[in-house]
Amino acid sequence: MADAHAPERPLASGQSRIDFQTAPARYRHWKLAVDGDVATLFMDVDERGGLFEGYELKLNSYDLGVDIELADAIERLRFEHPQVRAVVLRSGKPRVFCAGANIRMLAGASHAHKVNFCKFTNETRNGIEDLSENSGLPTICAISGTAAGGGYELALAADHIMLVDDGSSSVSLPELPLLAVLPGTGGLTRVADKRKVRRDHADVFCTTEEGVKGKRALDWRLVDEVVPGSKFEDAVTARARDFAAKSRRGGAGQGIKLTPLVRTFSANGIDYSSVTVEFDRAARIATITLRGPTAPPPDSADAMAALGAEFWPLRLARELDDAILNIRLNEFDVAAIVFKSSGDPAEVIAYERFLDANRDHWLTREIRHLWKRVLKRVDLTSRSLVALIEPGSCFAGTLAELAFATDRSYMFLGQRDGDNKPPAALVLSAANFGSYPMSNGLTRLASRFLANPADLAAAESEVGQTLDAARAQKLGLVTFALDDIDWDDEVRVFLEERASFSPDGLTGLEANLRFAGPETMESKIFARLTAWQNWIFQRPNAVGEEGALKRYGTGQQPVFDTRRV
Amino acid sequence: MADAHAPERPLASGQSRIDFQTAPARYRHWKLAVDGDVATLFMDVDERGGLFEGYELKLNSYDLGVDIELADAIERLRFEHPQVRAVVLRSGKPRVFCAGANIRMLAGASHAHKVNFCKFTNETRNGIEDLSENSGLPTICAISGTAAGGGYELALAADHIMLVDDGSSSVSLPELPLLAVLPGTGGLTRVADKRKVRRDHADVFCTTEEGVKGKRALDWRLVDEVVPGSKFEDAVTARARDFAAKSRRGGAGQGIKLTPLVRTFSANGIDYSSVTVEFDRAARIATITLRGPTAPPPDSADAMAALGAEFWPLRLARELDDAILNIRLNEFDVAAIVFKSSGDPAEVIAYERFLDANRDHWLTREIRHLWKRVLKRVDLTSRSLVALIEPGSCFAGTLAELAFATDRSYMFLGQRDGDNKPPAALVLSAANFGSYPMSNGLTRLASRFLANPADLAAAESEVGQTLDAARAQKLGLVTFALDDIDWDDEVRVFLEERASFSPDGLTGLEANLRFAGPETMESKIFARLTAWQNWIFQRPNAVGEEGALKRYGTGQQPVFDTRRV
Repeated sequence: MADAHAPERPLASGQSRIDFQTAPARYRHWKLAVDGDVATLFMDVDERGGLFEGYELKLNSYDLGVDIELADAIERLRFEHPQVRAVVLRSGKPRVFCAGANIRMLAGASHAHKVNFCKFTNETRNGIEDLSENSGLPTICAISGTAAGGGYELALAADHIMLVDDGSSSVSLPELPLLAVLPGTGGLTRVADKRKVRRDHADVFCTTEEGVKGKRALDWRLVDEVVPGSKFEDAVTARARDFAAKSRRGGAGQGIKLTPLVRTFSANGIDYSSVTVEFDRAARIATITLRGPTAPPPDSADAMAALGAEFWPLRLARELDDAILNIRLNEFDVAAIVFKSSGDPAEVIAYERFLDANRDHWLTREIRHLWKRVLKRVDLTSRSLVALIEPGSCFAGTLAELAFATDRSYMFLGQRDGDNKPPAALVLSAANFGSYPMSNGLTRLASRFLANPADLAAAESEVGQTLDAARAQKLGLVTFALDDIDWDDEVRVFLEERASFSPDGLTGLEANLRFAGPETMESKIFARLTAWQNWIFQRPNAVGEEGALKRYGTGQQPVFDTRRV
Repeated sequence: MADAHAPERPLASGQSRIDFQTAPARYRHWKLAVDGDVATLFMDVDERGGLFEGYELKLNSYDLGVDIELADAIERLRFEHPQVRAVVLRSGKPRVFCAGANIRMLAGASHAHKVNFCKFTNETRNGIEDLSENSGLPTICAISGTAAGGGYELALAADHIMLVDDGSSSVSLPELPLLAVLPGTGGLTRVADKRKVRRDHADVFCTTEEGVKGKRALDWRLVDEVVPGSKFEDAVTARARDFAAKSRRGGAGQGIKLTPLVRTFSANGIDYSSVTVEFDRAARIATITLRGPTAPPPDSADAMAALGAEFWPLRLARELDDAILNIRLNEFDVAAIVFKSSGDPAEVIAYERFLDANRDHWLTREIRHLWKRVLKRVDLTSRSLVALIEPGSCFAGTLAELAFATDRSYMFLGQRDGDNKPPAALVLSAANFGSYPMSNGLTRLASRFLANPADLAAAESEVGQTLDAARAQKLGLVTFALDDIDWDDEVRVFLEERASFSPDGLTGLEANLRFAGPETMESKIFARLTAWQNWIFQRPNAVGEEGALKRYGTGQQPVFDTRRV
């Protein structure tokens, strides 16, 4: 392919890495306005604020940088604004809601960036739905002007889509007729499975470049409400009040501040307060080590809230999330992510107990949901994932969940010769049996033990027990238990082998083996839709020199290989 | 891509088209032996019997030609051998069960052929499972020697896998380590979802070139039984008897003969007794016209059996299936398939009533299942599908189902000026509400009306009514109802537009919009697994000049672009 070995374009920031941390004061593209129990997210993209050099973000089109701000705003609504009970999503520009992902950015991006960009934007939209479903904070999307492609896909993440009926405002998915690619951010899946648009209507809609407006958009279930222009503002306000009134969000009390992560980047790693990332670039491995707590849990939920973003489970989740995103989009050459941990499992379990005891507090709920999303992000990271459960580690409760998220796990039997670290232990908690569903709707252990529900029950009966390697293997919780004699060689050979395989083959293999069992809209987006989009993103009809993506805006028609596959 | 414009290799037969018709007397690769109520399918591939020139089918490896024979044998077990109650699948060669799809064939095939080859082999294996699930004819796979890649995937379609425990016989999915591609015939899905192999075991299995044997294969759920070599033959016989004894297959009475289809190929079409295919190559359209019956249904089930393959519903299904396969694998340039019909809807409905009245007869059941599979084949055909429901047509009952299988349908309002054909009519029958589930497990109408079950009930209340275009549109059964003034232009513009779009984009679009609602193992195979495999089949790491598929057997190691996507 044209871009098989293409380097990424220079970042407009002049930096060498994409940064996933931001804050409202630094937003260039979004404004988050909170008024009582209603928040409004205005999308007002700065044309000159592209993440990379070489394109302008016209007509509220977006790139990864724009979406990083949106994701940040959503997190802040969760943690900093617990009193908000409805969100209005709208444009800060006249006559356009959002033109979708920036086409020049897409045309110039490497395949790896494109795919991981789409994955991140999908996760952000799933996060908007999770916010509504699990935190009771619904989103109303108010469309005045055109909502095209990714713009309409953003709307599709909302609970209620309002479209002004002014003869020109429209919704559309013009990707196929215009660019020969698919709507890549869940559009087709949400049209078919969330909005349940009739299949033939969906076919017409997705092949009509100019989209659909007014009554037809409503009749075809593409929007929930069309409103005359003169009544639009009042209707949006009224609808926001309706949704806020019906919201289940408790929202008592103050939010906490999501303070900036403290990080140090070096040539071969990233250091956070409780997470370390080490890159072995020759071996193409990133090792993520998570450190257990250094202090016992606070005395009360109030004390937890006072700690805010410093509260260990929250801090660890945010750091791990940032680490994973860094690897995904800044370190394409990493073949495998190795998860390690260090600390006292009993101290981790003390935090599990604290979170369970305070499970009805809004902040513990949000922390559990954050961990759920971070763990899903791990599941969906297309690198080989392995857990090394060694002496001195603390894979307990939520941290044990990371071991179950990996493709395989190795656990150390006994102690290392000449080392006095305590033997490796795995400790399960109630969280492993319900708090963290995967994209397929099942917990990782339920997915793992799909064949024998009795194995799941057997594991559950061990909650709170300190499981050594032999016991953990017998229970089916780890892949291999190895002693000091075999450990180093086996692990080394495995990691070398993994780095020798085709990265693409592994991506496909892992996407198929990680998600057994039922499918959900979310798993459909990441499996079916993403896989087809990735395929199309490789096809000359889209990305070749004569392809539609390359020729868009040049005045030249694309030339297609007409053979159907 | 290297093969983007590659022509297909010459067929070894010297013919210009792949032929999907065969018969046991002509098999070169399989032997079907029937002994009382047990049938044995011996795979004994003729090395020199490759479909294309340029490779040898060593070690029981297969290409499309081999699979066409297998598919034919399965159909004959259904129709010609209703007394058979268990099938044993085994190798006719010592020390090898089956080495999977032939690698040299894959390395030299065009992307379009590879993808459609995989689709056909998937359909054949799904057919083996359908035979067990819905016709009560189970398959036992007896593996002595190696079952590698597609060989093990063939075994995975069986109800019961037996592996000889001789220290060398093994099952494996070596595609990833050996060829940098995925097991493309359902392997990953069946390992995860049918056999529910634990995810980390699956990871080890699928990355271990030499596979797994003996007790580990059993412990990991990869096979159902391991048997010492000395007891293998007796065990296979005993197991076949067990399964036959438990079979639900009624199987009374004689089978019918699946006589050769009567076909005439011309430069621009194919003529069957009740089906005509016309190619408009400039417009890239294939029009399939189905003709209604020319005689009323027989008086009795016995009379139907006496008609055998001449019985109109059976004949039509076989002809349509052959036509679809011809387009899929011989006519890659066709962008859209247009379905038309001609005849009297009342006569079609008379056959529906006959089939319903005799629904417990083994032959009517097999005919309904055949139609189910043919209609699924239509759903899974990656060409745009359109039904033109015109005056004089007979889209009734089973034929109406074809209209619901299309991406969109146009129905003629009233009559054509100067034409005395009766106005277009759609007639529903009970078959539209249960006989023909799609891959997602729902009927086409249930999928269509996912948003409003009341619409489904409204349609069902119209069973047997002659629905004109206005009524059919009101019921949501057709996309557009157009009169004489608009018809020609609208249809022409639509077909021209369709042919102008990127074929790849359409493939992805249709794969996402056609299957709303639940997922099944089958839909997962065709969506998730196929899409990833297609992606990988485009990647330089597999098919590039330095890729694993191209370098296999050359002694040279493949060179990979190490970036993960």
